[in-house]
Parts: sequence; structure tokens; C-alpha cells
Amino acid sequence: MGINSLDQLGEALLTRFSPRPVAIVTDSNLAPIFGARIEEGLRNQGFESSTYVVPAGEESKCLTRLAELYEFFANARLERSSFIVALGGGVIGDLAGMAAATYLRGVPVVQVGTTVVAQVDSSIGGKVGINLPQGKNLVGAFNQPAMIWSDVTTLTTLSDPEFVSGMAEVVKSAVIRDASLFELLEENAEMILAKDPEIMLEVVTRCAGIKANVVAEDEREGGLRQILNFGHTMGHALETIRGYGVLRHGEAVSIGMVGAARLGKALGMPDIEPQLVSLLSRLGLPLQAPFSAGTDDLLKIMSHDKKVRDGKLVFVLPVAIGEVEIKQDVSAEAVAKVLPTVVR
Amino acid sequence: MGINSLDQLGEALLTRFSPRPVAIVTDSNLAPIFGARIEEGLRNQGFESSTYVVPAGEESKCLTRLAELYEFFANARLERSSFIVALGGGVIGDLAGMAAATYLRGVPVVQVGTTVVAQVDSSIGGKVGINLPQGKNLVGAFNQPAMIWSDVTTLTTLSDPEFVSGMAEVVKSAVIRDASLFELLEENAEMILAKDPEIMLEVVTRCAGIKANVVAEDEREGGLRQILNFGHTMGHALETIRGYGVLRHGEAVSIGMVGAARLGKALGMPDIEPQLVSLLSRLGLPLQAPFSAGTDDLLKIMSHDKKVRDGKLVFVLPVAIGEVEIKQDVSAEAVAKVLPTVVR
Repeated sequence: MGINSLDQLGEALLTRFSPRPVAIVTDSNLAPIFGARIEEGLRNQGFESSTYVVPAGEESKCLTRLAELYEFFANARLERSSFIVALGGGVIGDLAGMAAATYLRGVPVVQVGTTVVAQVDSSIGGKVGINLPQGKNLVGAFNQPAMIWSDVTTLTTLSDPEFVSGMAEVVKSAVIRDASLFELLEENAEMILAKDPEIMLEVVTRCAGIKANVVAEDEREGGLRQILNFGHTMGHALETIRGYGVLRHGEAVSIGMVGAARLGKALGMPDIEPQLVSLLSRLGLPLQAPFSAGTDDLLKIMSHDKKVRDGKLVFVLPVAIGEVEIKQDVSAEAVAKVLPTVVR
Repeated sequence: MGINSLDQLGEALLTRFSPRPVAIVTDSNLAPIFGARIEEGLRNQGFESSTYVVPAGEESKCLTRLAELYEFFANARLERSSFIVALGGGVIGDLAGMAAATYLRGVPVVQVGTTVVAQVDSSIGGKVGINLPQGKNLVGAFNQPAMIWSDVTTLTTLSDPEFVSGMAEVVKSAVIRDASLFELLEENAEMILAKDPEIMLEVVTRCAGIKANVVAEDEREGGLRQILNFGHTMGHALETIRGYGVLRHGEAVSIGMVGAARLGKALGMPDIEPQLVSLLSRLGLPLQAPFSAGTDDLLKIMSHDKKVRDGKLVFVLPVAIGEVEIKQDVSAEAVAKVLPTVVR
């Protein structure tokens, strides 16, 4: 974690790896901004570095790009003792991480996240993968990064809507595990929206710590890791129902958190909705989808099942700001009452 | 391990898995022989089983077939709690194992090996992978099978040369770890060549045990697992120099073991060559490549390096029948003296 720390990456890597062929994977948006700088930094430390650029966007998380990366690694003569730098957001981290996990049965990957989501979430925990035409992340692996190098100054490359969307995962981290982080966000919402590096360093560091702790306690997704899905059950349904791209992921999560808070309240749990809604609003995050959608259709997506109305759903619900519970037996009926409030 | 045990596979799986969608992956040679029988066995136990058949042969260990398997799994609606049956030899085990390792970040795989090499070696240990145009096994993963189900009666589907070639890995197992297995092979060479099920069950079980023990002590290939490469250093060079397919893998390993025995003797280690050569000959395995090849060219392949003659090579060398040592500093000069004796 650092401010303006990209130039020190080569040096940091030299403390862990000896000079050898290495590869940088990045996208067409980031390559012109950071590509030469990172490659030069690595070369100055004696690494034989070369860069592969994929088109920016979720479409690059596919088998075709994965195959291209394998070919690039083979031609660059990467060895098991080489490393791969994933420079970018979640798409690059997932794609390059997947390639690294499977090339030569595993080459170390260095995650250099350049988005809020990558820095606080996707670069940590070792989940990597690609999409198939049949669904997202259907192909993947668990591959812990050899190093995570987050420079908050790279967040200035994000558009405001991208940045704000990423903040939804930050709010999520606070709600599930850290009341004092929630306070920090409340007290500094304006500085955060200005992408102030000092405050963002604090925010990113704390969120990364939360993710790392949760994952360390549950690396293979048995139990605790589920709490990271807070806001994601309804969020995912909203993201899916109109096709990906209508709502940003973080926007969907924001709305999903509001829905989960209301659902908890309806089930007799403590009411965190006012505090949550207030913070999300100040950060410019949405509380409601900008479209209408049928309750049954949404339930169907959430339950992966045809017998929807009788079914039970698993939900992560807030007990307080900073603490959630996993509820295994939420009735579809209760969810159905909340859903109309999160769509237009 | 068993004799005529394929029909019990479904029952055995029901003790570990509950009925759900599952997939069988096999090849065009085996599908007509065992495909319907296995699929029926699984269906009788309530598994929703479907089969994907790839063309027989090493060419199927490629990204194209891997992508086809992913698509098949998605359409068959496999879940993380499903399983994939890999029915075949090393190619199927590697390809289906790789698909299983990465689909949904890991679906259990059941290895049903139908060749000697699959039953004694490749189905055990969790190494899976596919080839790239640039090289063999460049893409892969470690994926321990959920179950290994070897029926020695399936070995009768092998041609005699295929069967004999597989026996080279059996002899290797005996030389590296088990003097009493070596004796068993000496005493039963004729029964083995007749593919006698009783003796093959004994042989396969003991070899599988050796492989499993070595791998358990060294899952990620740091040290001990290297002893499994006995005979493979020269063998691989001989296999490579004329392109794959001229020598069978086991034939190359047989010749490589003879070379390693001679190399050990030349370096002052105990001489196991006469005993080894006698057993290999009785099993119909070759002691010399049926072609000529330049010593420097072979050395170059073995060392992955241009500075060959001055270099040091790593070799697994026999101390006795049943025990080997890993020698880190074998001079290329010593190897160069042996190489002309293993080619024509």
C-alpha cells in the first residue's frame, strides 16, 4: 500500500525474486499511462520484462485472451521462478491471475490493482477466473498472490462513477466487520470523493486488512467468507436481470445492501438502514435500481431454482454497523416484500 | 484397485456423493468399449450422467478440447458438488483433470485409468495439464483426485506394445523404492506379459502405493518427487530429439534407465546394470534407441542451456535395486561418455 509507490515496485520485487524473464499484463487504458513506467522500473532492476496488453473491459476475461497469454508467456520463456505482474482492475487481476495459476502449474503473480475494487477486494484472497459464454467466473482457480502492491494515486485514473461504484465495497467492508471504519467514512466522505491520497490510503489499507482476515480464516469458501457477499444477493439479481452493464457492480451492491438492511429489520433484527442510507447517499451511491423488475423474476435469479415462493434463501444480514450474521433460512416471502422497494 | 470392478464404480461413488449431474470424459477408443457400461452404472445409482468423447491421442490434450469440456460441463449444469469421471489413459486423466481443477474453481475428479501408466503413475499425485504448441504440459494444475478406481481388466484393451511400454514405469517404481517388487517382476515376467489379472492387481497396487507415498511426502515437487524422474532425463532427450511418437514414452524411459545405471557405475556407484537389463529384456523393453543421435544435441536438450559441455546436470542414479540418490552435480562430460551407448 502506498502513495506514488509504483516506481518502487521493481526494487520491492528484487527483494523477493532474482533477475529473470517476467511478464506484465495490463489493458489498453492503463498501458499508455503506467506501462512504460512499470516496465522500465523492472528493467532497471535487471528483470527481462515484457508487456502484454488486452483490450480494456470485461470481455477480455475470456478463454481467447487466456490462450493468448499462455502463448505470450511461452514466447517470453517464463519459468516457474518468474513472476507475472497483473496491472489493472478486477478484470486484469482475474485474467492474469488465472493465467499465472495455470501456466507451468503455477507462476507467482503480483497484483497491482488500479481500481478501488481491485485494491480493497479482488486482488486479495486468491480467487481468479474467467467467464464463459454460459456465465461469469465459471472457470477459475485459487491462487494467492506473491505480492500485492496498491498505489492509491492510480485511483485518479478512474472516472468519478467508477470510483464511486468501487466505494460500495468499502462501505460493505465497514458494515460487515469494522464500525470504526464506517465512522471514518462518515467523517471524511468529501475528502474521499476528492480521492485524497492520505485518506484513501487509510481506507484501502483497512479494507484490504478486513478482506485478508476474512479470507485467512476461510480460504476455500466454506463459511465465514460468505459474509463478503453482504449486499450481493439482491445486488447480483439486479445486475443480472437487465444484463450486465446496465448497473455497475458497486451500484448493484449498494442497492443490495439497502435491501438487506430492510430485510433484516423486517425479520426483527436491529435497524441500520438510516445510517447506511445516509452514508451511501453522501458518497453518491444509489439506493434503488433505475428500472423496474418483477419480484418473481428477481427471486428466481436469487434461488437458482424453480420452486421459488416456497423456498428458503441464504442472506447475510446486519446485526449492527460492523457485524453481520449469515441467515440460512430466510423465507422467499420475506424477501418478496422488500424487493419492490429496491426497484423503480 | 480391482479385477472386473468397473461395474461397482457407481455404487462406490454413491458412498461419497449424492445423486446430481455428473460428467464422464473419455476417448473415441474407450467410449465404445466401456462408455455405456459406466454411464449406466452411474445412472442406476441416480446420477444424472452424460459423456463427452474426445478423439483418442495426445493431440486431445489441448486448449480446444479443454474449452469444449468447459462448454459441456456448463450445458450439463455441473455444480461444485458434482464430479467428473476421467475414463482413459494419461491423456484423458490430464485433460479431464485439468478441466475439473478449473471448472467452478474445482470440481472433484474420479480417475479411472485404463492403461498401465495411468494406473501406476499418472492418475496418482494430482498433476494435470494440457499441451501448448510451444511445449508439453505447459498449462496445468495440481488437483488431487477425489477417488482413483483402477480395474486391471481394462488393461486387456491395450495393444502389446502399449502394455509393455507401460511396464517401464513399473520397473522404474521397483528400482527407486522397492526391491521386493523388482523380485516379483523377475519371478512373474511371463504372467505379466500375459496380462494375468491377479498378478497385475498386485503389481498395480504396489506401484500406486509407491507413487502415492513419494507424492505424499513431497506434493509440490520440491525434493523427493524428483526420484520419480529416474530414467526420464536421458529418456526425455531421446523422446524429444526425433519428435514425439517415434519412441513410446515407456520405451524412452527403459533406455534412459539403462543409461542412468551405466552413468552411476561410471561415477563409482554400485552396478545394477546386469539385473536391470535382464528384467527389461524379458519384458520386451528396449535397451537402446533404434536411431542414432548426436551426443551434443542430446546434452543440449537435457541441460536446457547453451553452455553444455562445462555444465552440471541433475540425475537420479541407483544406489541399489530399490534405492536411488539425486545427484546435483553430474558433469556433462560423464554423461557424454554414456550417451553413445544408448543410441544406435
